[in-house]
Amino acid sequence: MKLLYPNSLVFDPSGLEGFGVSLHEYDAKSPIPEHLIDAEILVTWNNNNLPDAAKRMHNLRWIQSLFAGPNDVLAAGFSPDIKVTAGTNLHDETVVEHALALTLSAARKLYEMRDYQNQGKWPGHLGGFLPDRPKGSFTSLKGANILIWGVGNIGRKLAPHFVALGANVRGVGLFEEIIDGIQVQTNDALPKLLPQTDALIMILPGSKGTFLALNTERLKMLPKHAWVINVGRGTCVDENAIAKALNEGSIGGAALDVFHTEPLPSSSSLWKAPNLIISPHAAGGRPRYSESLVAENLRRFLAGQPLKHDVAAGGMYGAAQSGDKPALKASL
Amino acid sequence: MKLLYPNSLVFDPSGLEGFGVSLHEYDAKSPIPEHLIDAEILVTWNNNNLPDAAKRMHNLRWIQSLFAGPNDVLAAGFSPDIKVTAGTNLHDETVVEHALALTLSAARKLYEMRDYQNQGKWPGHLGGFLPDRPKGSFTSLKGANILIWGVGNIGRKLAPHFVALGANVRGVGLFEEIIDGIQVQTNDALPKLLPQTDALIMILPGSKGTFLALNTERLKMLPKHAWVINVGRGTCVDENAIAKALNEGSIGGAALDVFHTEPLPSSSSLWKAPNLIISPHAAGGRPRYSESLVAENLRRFLAGQPLKHDVAAGGMYGAAQSGDKPALKASL
Repeated sequence: MKLLYPNSLVFDPSGLEGFGVSLHEYDAKSPIPEHLIDAEILVTWNNNNLPDAAKRMHNLRWIQSLFAGPNDVLAAGFSPDIKVTAGTNLHDETVVEHALALTLSAARKLYEMRDYQNQGKWPGHLGGFLPDRPKGSFTSLKGANILIWGVGNIGRKLAPHFVALGANVRGVGLFEEIIDGIQVQTNDALPKLLPQTDALIMILPGSKGTFLALNTERLKMLPKHAWVINVGRGTCVDENAIAKALNEGSIGGAALDVFHTEPLPSSSSLWKAPNLIISPHAAGGRPRYSESLVAENLRRFLAGQPLKHDVAAGGMYGAAQSGDKPALKASL
Repeated sequence: MKLLYPNSLVFDPSGLEGFGVSLHEYDAKSPIPEHLIDAEILVTWNNNNLPDAAKRMHNLRWIQSLFAGPNDVLAAGFSPDIKVTAGTNLHDETVVEHALALTLSAARKLYEMRDYQNQGKWPGHLGGFLPDRPKGSFTSLKGANILIWGVGNIGRKLAPHFVALGANVRGVGLFEEIIDGIQVQTNDALPKLLPQTDALIMILPGSKGTFLALNTERLKMLPKHAWVINVGRGTCVDENAIAKALNEGSIGGAALDVFHTEPLPSSSSLWKAPNLIISPHAAGGRPRYSESLVAENLRRFLAGQPLKHDVAAGGMYGAAQSGDKPALKASL
C-alpha cells in the first residue's frame, strides 16, 4: 500500500513508519507521476493537481487534506467512494495566536502608533498619562465584553487567553450550551448580546448559512466603540456595510484577516476605511502536528475504524448551519 | 486628619471612608490651596506642584505616589522624615497587556502589514500558505525562547501568557531562583542565554545598575532573528547600538515603549531604523486599584504598622542593583 505526502510543507514521514505502508513524497504542483498513480492514500496541502489526480488515481481510497475545510478536494471531481478527511485542529493554535494579536493591536492602537511612526511623529495622545478604560472605549481586554461568534475548536482555545487578561467572554454558536466554561447562545441572542459587546471575534465557517452574517442590521447593534475581528471566513462579513460603518464611525474599528476576494482588490472600499486593520489571510496557513493526525488516521484506516474528521460524517457547522458539504470549518 | 487625593485620575474616595480621616480632592496642576496645606497625607499622580508642596506642607507625614517609581516625589525636596510609598503593582496589568501586544505584533508582523495597507498593497508574503516557524525565525510564540530580563511583579504576571501560547520562558534577575515556575538566572548567565533567545523582554527598572544594560556587546549575542521588546525603562538600552543592529539586520527587530528622551527627538537614529516598533510610553500610565492600595496603607498608617511599598524600606532592584534610591521599579 502506498501513501503519498506532498512537498508543499515540511512533513516528517518517519512518524508514519511501522505500518508497513510505503511512503512517497510528491510534488503538489505537478501531476502525480506514473509510478505513484496507483497509491491508495493521498495527503494534500496547497495542491494544484487535484482535478488531474481525480481522473488518474483509480486505486485511491482515502484523501487526507491538511486544510480545516478541504474545499479543493471536494471540488476536484474525486469519486464519492473515496473517503475525505479534513485537517481539523491543525490550524487552531496559529489562528488563536493571530486573533489574539489582532485584538490586542486594536485595543492598544498599535496600528495608529505605526502610522505616526511612519510620519516621524510621536503619538503622544496614545501614551503617557491616560485614563484607564474610559467609558465607551475599547482600550484594554481587562473587563472587556468579548463575544466569540462561532465557538468551535479555535474559539474554545482562544477564550482562555482573553479570560486570563480579564475579559468577560461569551459565545454564539448553534446551540445553547456551556463550552469549556463559556456561555454559548444562538444567533437569536445577537440583538441582546451585540449591544453589550466591546470586541466581536468572528470565527464562523464559510457556508450559505453564514454568508453576510455580519450585515448592516447587526453592525448597527454594536456600540460605537466596538471592534470587529474576523479570522473566520471573509464571506461572513458584508464588506460594504462594514466599510460604511467604519467611515461613519458607527463602530470603533475592525481587524479583518479574511475577505470575499483575496488578495483584496484595489477597488475595495475597505482600503480607505479608517480604523481598519487589513491582515492578508495570515492567521492560519501553517498546519501543525500534521504527522500525528495522519498517523492516527492511517492506523484507523488500516484497522477499518472510522477516520477522524471524515467530512462525509458531517461537521457541526457545515451540516447544521448551511446544508453545504459539511466540515467547512473556518480558517486555512 | 486630612488626606488629599489628586484630580489627575478617576479616583473614588468612598473606598477611603470609615477611617475618620477627612478626604479632599486637589488640583494636581496648581499649588495646594491654603485651606488644605495642613494635610498629613498626600496622594500624588502626575503632579507638577510637588516642589511647592515640599516647601509649604509642614504637617505632611506620608506621601502615597501612584507611580511604581515615585522619582518626582523623591526629587521634590520633601523632608526625609516624610514616608513615601510607591504605587507598586498598580501598573502590572496594563504593562503586561502592552508587552504581550507588542510581542505578538512582532511575531505576526502586524507592523509590516500596516505599512503595506497604507500603500494600498496586499502583503501576500505574510499570508496564505506559509512554512510554520522556519528555522531562524520568530513568527510565533509557540516553542519560542522568551527571556524576561527583570523578573519583578510585571514579569511574573506576563510569563503565564507566554507559556499559555507555548513559549519557553526563562528569566534574568538579581538572584538565581525559581519565581512562579520561571527559572531565573543572573546577568552572568546572559552570554549563555542571549544566543538562545527568540524574544528578549526587558522589564528592568531605571537605575545606575541597569543603565545601557543592552549594549553593543550583548546585542551581538542575540541571534539574527531575535526581537527586543522594552517596556521597562529607556535608559536600559543603548539606542545608537540598537539602531545600528537594526540597520545592519544583526537582530530581527525591536519594539520599544520607552526611550532615553520622550517624546523621542526627531534627531533620533531610531526613527529610520527598520523592523522597529515605536510605542509612545503607552504600556502603563493608567493605575488600577489605586483606591485599594491607598485604603490598605491608610489603615496601616493609622494603626502604626509598616506601610506597603515604602521606598525607604528598599526595593529589590533599586537597592541591590544600583545603590540608588530604592524601589525605582520599572514602568509608569
